[in-house]
Amino acid sequence: MSSSDIFIGETIGTAILVLLGGGVCAAVTFKRSKAFEAGWVAIAFGWGFAVLTGAYISSGVSGAHLNPAVTIGLAIEGGTKWSDVPLYLGSQLLGAMIGAVLMWLAYYGQFRAHLTDPEIIAAQPEEEGLVDQKSAPKAGPTLGIFSTGPEIRHWVQNLVTEIIATIVLVLAILTQGLNDDGNGLGALGALITAFVVVSIGLSLGGPTGYAINPVRDLGPRIVHALLPLPNKGGSDWTYAWIPIAGPLIGGAAAGGLYQLAFA
Amino acid sequence: MSSSDIFIGETIGTAILVLLGGGVCAAVTFKRSKAFEAGWVAIAFGWGFAVLTGAYISSGVSGAHLNPAVTIGLAIEGGTKWSDVPLYLGSQLLGAMIGAVLMWLAYYGQFRAHLTDPEIIAAQPEEEGLVDQKSAPKAGPTLGIFSTGPEIRHWVQNLVTEIIATIVLVLAILTQGLNDDGNGLGALGALITAFVVVSIGLSLGGPTGYAINPVRDLGPRIVHALLPLPNKGGSDWTYAWIPIAGPLIGGAAAGGLYQLAFA
Amino acid sequence: MSSSDIFIGETIGTAILVLLGGGVCAAVTFKRSKAFEAGWVAIAFGWGFAVLTGAYISSGVSGAHLNPAVTIGLAIEGGTKWSDVPLYLGSQLLGAMIGAVLMWLAYYGQFRAHLTDPEIIAAQPEEEGLVDQKSAPKAGPTLGIFSTGPEIRHWVQNLVTEIIATIVLVLAILTQGLNDDGNGLGALGALITAFVVVSIGLSLGGPTGYAINPVRDLGPRIVHALLPLPNKGGSDWTYAWIPIAGPLIGGAAAGGLYQLAFA
Amino acid sequence: MSSSDIFIGETIGTAILVLLGGGVCAAVTFKRSKAFEAGWVAIAFGWGFAVLTGAYISSGVSGAHLNPAVTIGLAIEGGTKWSDVPLYLGSQLLGAMIGAVLMWLAYYGQFRAHLTDPEIIAAQPEEEGLVDQKSAPKAGPTLGIFSTGPEIRHWVQNLVTEIIATIVLVLAILTQGLNDDGNGLGALGALITAFVVVSIGLSLGGPTGYAINPVRDLGPRIVHALLPLPNKGGSDWTYAWIPIAGPLIGGAAAGGLYQLAFA
Repeated sequence: MSSSDIFIGETIGTAILVLLGGGVCAAVTFKRSKAFEAGWVAIAFGWGFAVLTGAYISSGVSGAHLNPAVTIGLAIEGGTKWSDVPLYLGSQLLGAMIGAVLMWLAYYGQFRAHLTDPEIIAAQPEEEGLVDQKSAPKAGPTLGIFSTGPEIRHWVQNLVTEIIATIVLVLAILTQGLNDDGNGLGALGALITAFVVVSIGLSLGGPTGYAINPVRDLGPRIVHALLPLPNKGGSDWTYAWIPIAGPLIGGAAAGGLYQLAFA
Repeated sequence: MSSSDIFIGETIGTAILVLLGGGVCAAVTFKRSKAFEAGWVAIAFGWGFAVLTGAYISSGVSGAHLNPAVTIGLAIEGGTKWSDVPLYLGSQLLGAMIGAVLMWLAYYGQFRAHLTDPEIIAAQPEEEGLVDQKSAPKAGPTLGIFSTGPEIRHWVQNLVTEIIATIVLVLAILTQGLNDDGNGLGALGALITAFVVVSIGLSLGGPTGYAINPVRDLGPRIVHALLPLPNKGGSDWTYAWIPIAGPLIGGAAAGGLYQLAFA
Repeated sequence: MSSSDIFIGETIGTAILVLLGGGVCAAVTFKRSKAFEAGWVAIAFGWGFAVLTGAYISSGVSGAHLNPAVTIGLAIEGGTKWSDVPLYLGSQLLGAMIGAVLMWLAYYGQFRAHLTDPEIIAAQPEEEGLVDQKSAPKAGPTLGIFSTGPEIRHWVQNLVTEIIATIVLVLAILTQGLNDDGNGLGALGALITAFVVVSIGLSLGGPTGYAINPVRDLGPRIVHALLPLPNKGGSDWTYAWIPIAGPLIGGAAAGGLYQLAFA
Repeated sequence: MSSSDIFIGETIGTAILVLLGGGVCAAVTFKRSKAFEAGWVAIAFGWGFAVLTGAYISSGVSGAHLNPAVTIGLAIEGGTKWSDVPLYLGSQLLGAMIGAVLMWLAYYGQFRAHLTDPEIIAAQPEEEGLVDQKSAPKAGPTLGIFSTGPEIRHWVQNLVTEIIATIVLVLAILTQGLNDDGNGLGALGALITAFVVVSIGLSLGGPTGYAINPVRDLGPRIVHALLPLPNKGGSDWTYAWIPIAGPLIGGAAAGGLYQLAFA
C-alpha cells in the first residue's frame, strides 16, 4: 500500500465517518432538524452506518482503519507496518477535522439558530454524582455534537469504560481474518464491523458516549475550539485526554490479547 | 445493456423506490395509519429499504441507478455511456411519477380523511430563522409526503447540505467496484447502498429532508401538482430547483473526486 | 423436491413465521409484556425478521415460499410446478394455524390477563371515515394480534393497498434470480427478502396492516375463532376475504409483470 | 478443535456476549446513561448484535456456540462430540460471569448512583396476575440488568415460553448448514443468527425476557449475588431454574426435531 493510498483513503474515509457521525448527533440535537429527539437508537445506528460508509469507501484504498486504536491494534498484531503508523494517524486526524467542518456546513443554519436561542444560552448543563474535579468545566451547548463527554465525570471510571468498549471493537476487527479469507475490510466485513459499532453504542455508550476512537473525539474538539460559533462555550479540554488514552490503551490491549489467545 | 432494459429497469425500479419512500412518509404522517408518528428512525430505514427494494428488483436489468445523480456520477467515472444518460434520466422521472401515483392509491382513504379534516386545513406550517425570501411560500399539508422541504429556508445553506449528502451517496456507489469484483449493484452491494442511504437519512437528513436524487423530488412534486387532492395547498415550486441542482452538483463532484482520488 | 420436503418445509417455516409475526403483535399490545408499546418500528422489523427466520429454516428443504402469493407468482413465472401448488398452499395454511397456536401458548398468561381486564372489555374499537358497510363489525380486543384489519374500512381501497404491497414483495422474490446465481432463497436472499418485508411494513403497512400473505391472515383468524379465549369478540369475517384476495391478485400480477418485463 | 480452542473461544465469546447484552440492559435502565429509556427496540437489537459480536470473534476458534442450548442441540444433531460438551458448558458459564463483571465495571458509577438513590430504594417491583407462589420474591432493583425475570410469574407458562423461543433459535442454527456450505457460523451465518435473536427478542421476549441461554442467565445471576452492590436486593433464585431448564429442553427438542424432519 503506497503512502498516497494511505493518505487518501484514511483522510477521506475518516472525514466521511465524522461527517456522518457528527451529523446524527446534530440531527437529534437541533429543534430545527427533522430528526429532532429521534433518540439513542438513531444515534447508535447513525454512528454504525457512518463507520460502514467511511469504511466501504476507503477499504479498497487504505484498508479503512479510520481509527488510531485500530491502527495500533493491527500494528501489534502484525497486519500493519509500524513505519506506516504515523501516516495513518496523521491522515485520520486531518480527516476527522475535515469531517467536523463539513458537518458544521451541512447544519450551518441549525447551529446559528440554536446558539442564538436565549433559552439554550441560559441553560446550564447539569452534572453530579461521581465528580472528582473541584469544579466540573462547563461544556458548551453544542459540544456534544462534536465530541464525547461523560454522564458521570470520574476519570478512572470513564477511562475503564472506553478501554473495555475499544477492546471489543478492535478484537472484532482483528478476528475478522479468521472469518473471511483474510481479505481485510471487504463489503461483508465492513457491514459486520458496522453492526459491532451499533452494538457498542447500544450497550456501552451509556456512560461516556463511546469515543472508541481518539481522532473521532480530538479532531472535532479542535474544530469546535476553532470555529466562530456564537456562545459556543468551552471545549472541555480537561476531559479530552480520556477519549484519546482509553481507546489507545484498548486498541493495544486488543492487539495483545489477539496475539496471546487467537494467533 | 439494451435501451429497453434501461427503460424497463429504471422505470420500474424508480417507481418502487418512490412508492416505498413516499409510502413511509405517508405512513408516519396520517393519523389513520398504523405507523402514525413512528418517527425519524422509521423514515430513515423506510427510505433505505425503499432503495434496497427498487435496486434489488432492477439491478439485474438496468444496473439500478434510479437516480440522475448516480447516472451523472457513473457517466463521469466512465461506467455509463453519456449517450445512455438521457434515457436513464427520462425513465427515472417517469418511474418517480408512477411511484408517487401508486403511493397515493395505496393511501387514498388516508389522503381524503386528512385533507378534509378541519384541524389540518386550519393549521399553517411555521417557518422562521434563516428565511431569505420575502414571503416563504405556504407548503401544502401533505406536500412533505411527496417532496422534500427545508427546516430553515436559505438557498445557499440548503444547496450545500444536498451537495454534501449526495457526494457521500455517489462516492459510496462508485467505490463499490473496489470492494466487490466489479459486478455492479448485486445483492450485497444493494444492501450496503441501502444502509448508506439510512446513514445519510439519519445524519444529514435533518436540514432539508435529503432529496439526494432529483427525480425522487421532482417526480412526486409534479404528481402533487396534478392530483385532484382537496385543500392540497401549493407545491412549493420556489424550492423545487434545490433538490434538483444540489444532487446533480453532488453527483458530478463525486464523479470528479473519484477520478481524482480513487481511480 | 419431494412432497414430504414441501410439506415439512412449508409447515414448519410458516409456523415459525406466524409464531414470530404474531408474537411481535402480542409483544407490543399487552401491558404485561416487556415490549409494551414498542411501536411500529418494532412491528416492521419483527415481521421482517419473522420472515427471515422462517425462510432461513425452511429454504434448504422446500424453497421457503411460506406464502400462497409467492407460490402463485412462482407458478406463473415457471419456477414452481402447478401440480405442487395445492400441497404448498395446504402446508402453509396448516403451518400458519400451528404458528398462531404456539404464539398463544407463549403469551398464554398475557392473553388471560388482558382479556379479563375490565377496562379492555369496556373499550370499543372505534372506526370512522370511509366505512362502506352499514355497521362495521366489532373486532375483538386481541384480534389484531392474530389477523390484519383496516384503519379505514373500504373494500376497494383496502384491496388496492394489499395488491400493491404484494406486487412489491413477489416481484422482489422473482427478480432474486437475476441477482444471485439462481440458487433460490439462500442466506443472503433470505436476508434481503426480510428487509423488503420490513420496507413494505414501514411504507405500505399503514392502511391495512399488510397481510401480503393469505395464510398469514386466514390461519390465525381461524385459530382466533376456535380458541377458548374469554371475551374475545368477533373474528371480523366480513373483512377476511380481502387479505386473501388482495395478496393472491398481487402475486399473480407480479408473476405476469415479471414474465412481461423481466424474463 | 482442540480443548484450548474451545476454552478460549467460548470463554471470550460468551464474555463479550454477556458484556454487551447486559450492557444494553444497563444502558436503558440507568437515568445517568445516554441511552436511558431507549426502549425495547434498543434491547432487542442490542442483544442481537451482542450475539453477532461474540460469535464473530469466537467462531473461527471454537465455532461460537456461546450457549449450552446450542451445544446440546449440536450434540444431538451430531455436529459436536458429547465428550466436548462439559468443556463447552464450563467455558460458557465462566465467560458469562466474566462478561457480567466487565459490564458492571463499565457502568460502575451508574450502579452506585442508581443503588444509592432514595427513590429507587423505596420503589417495590410490582407483580400480579398468574402468580403461583405464596409470596413472590422481591427482585433487586438492578437484577434485571443481570438476569431475566417474568412479567407474569407462573412456572409452567414461563417454561413454555422459554422452550418455544429456544427451539426457534437452535433450529435456525442447525438448519444453517442447509443454507451455507456447511462451514459453520461464518460471517454471514453470524449475521443471520444475530437477526434471528433480534426476532426472538421482538416477538417472544415479552413474557420472560428471553433467556434462551442458560449461562446468559445463571452466570450474571451468580455475579449479582456475589458483587458488593449496595441495596441490591435478592437475586430471585426461586425463578433461576426456569431460564436454565427451558433453554436446555428447547435446545434438545430442536436437535430432535432437526434429526426427525430435516436430516
